[in-house]
Amino acid sequence: MPTPTLERLSTYLRYLLELERAGVETIRSAEIEEPTGISAAQFRKDLSYFGEFGKPGSGYYVSELRARIATILKLDRDQLVLLVGAGNLGAALAAFPGWAQYHLHIAAVFDNNIAKIGRRLWDWEILDIERLAEVNEKLGAEIGIIAVPAEAAQSVADRLVAAGVRGLLNFAPAGIRPAPGVAVRNVSLVQEMAVLTYHLGERSCNRLPDEEPAEDETEAE
Amino acid sequence: MPTPTLERLSTYLRYLLELERAGVETIRSAEIEEPTGISAAQFRKDLSYFGEFGKPGSGYYVSELRARIATILKLDRDQLVLLVGAGNLGAALAAFPGWAQYHLHIAAVFDNNIAKIGRRLWDWEILDIERLAEVNEKLGAEIGIIAVPAEAAQSVADRLVAAGVRGLLNFAPAGIRPAPGVAVRNVSLVQEMAVLTYHLGERSCNRLPDEEPAEDETEAE
Repeated sequence: MPTPTLERLSTYLRYLLELERAGVETIRSAEIEEPTGISAAQFRKDLSYFGEFGKPGSGYYVSELRARIATILKLDRDQLVLLVGAGNLGAALAAFPGWAQYHLHIAAVFDNNIAKIGRRLWDWEILDIERLAEVNEKLGAEIGIIAVPAEAAQSVADRLVAAGVRGLLNFAPAGIRPAPGVAVRNVSLVQEMAVLTYHLGERSCNRLPDEEPAEDETEAE
Repeated sequence: MPTPTLERLSTYLRYLLELERAGVETIRSAEIEEPTGISAAQFRKDLSYFGEFGKPGSGYYVSELRARIATILKLDRDQLVLLVGAGNLGAALAAFPGWAQYHLHIAAVFDNNIAKIGRRLWDWEILDIERLAEVNEKLGAEIGIIAVPAEAAQSVADRLVAAGVRGLLNFAPAGIRPAPGVAVRNVSLVQEMAVLTYHLGERSCNRLPDEEPAEDETEAE
């Protein structure tokens, strides 16, 4: 499945989880346009790829659709995750409240900084990176998150793979070379920014008109 | 230009900056495959879209190519950025050393937490979010980074747009609705993870064979 399709499916999943929490039971394709920015036609096309979902005219059942998409994305089973890097980014990733919804569980946090090892990052004890293989022999985690400086990224990736990890989510500001049989997703802040700045220029011809000088009640005497 | 193309261009840009720092002057398309994971054919095709780059057989000039791609992505000019959210993620984003290379400068940091306002985040004083419009009247920043909890994301986005920002990079774990004339890039940790878990399953049939039981020199007596 191409990456843009996967990305759209996970956007739908995120929104369906929101709807489910809000107690919404059904949704029509037209209703997904505004919150996701994806057209109803694209949504229907993406879903039709996986067979029958919902009925024309009566919409989709939110829970059923959420479960089907989670299964497609393999986010329907419990999966353990190793986090390497207990700096600011690691702390932000560890504290991220969304993992559990997707059955992802950060099972251990590692760092190579003597000053950090043995201290706590939220609920986790920060473990010595030297213990990675030993610890994962028991855990059997297959997903690793890399939140270390650029120069350490590749060696951390190599260690994770040697410890049995088969999927790497890399937040270090340096791409890592994929190893055979290992899925790698490099998340680049700069890449995200580049997509934004490109469109920034493109849309400058399409700026918002000045706001109507509406009555501003908060400023009224 | 489609998003995947933009993403590839920014991958090339990142690698070209690395090469430039390392003093490498020319590069052949075949050499980009291993570090970027993008095929040489794709690389040549992407570049051919923008006219003449390099000469067949003699490779590309790294500095020239870097400058051309930066111009295409509009990352060749100084741009000010506002950061909202001075938590762990905000701290990680503010400390990210890569922005300057792309001529991006975090000009101000905002938060709504009374306990944080007036304190420092690295070199920045954390400013009251209430001052956003006033501060940006002087700065004129057009890019905003959102690093706040999900429930605050949309209101922060609205405030940034009202303050003149035209491009939003949203790291909050909730999508924000695009306003007309404003470019939005939602960075979703879960979305990145979903792309990874999908491929994790896909490649499980393609696992690495067990390592050859090679002589391990470090264990030799």
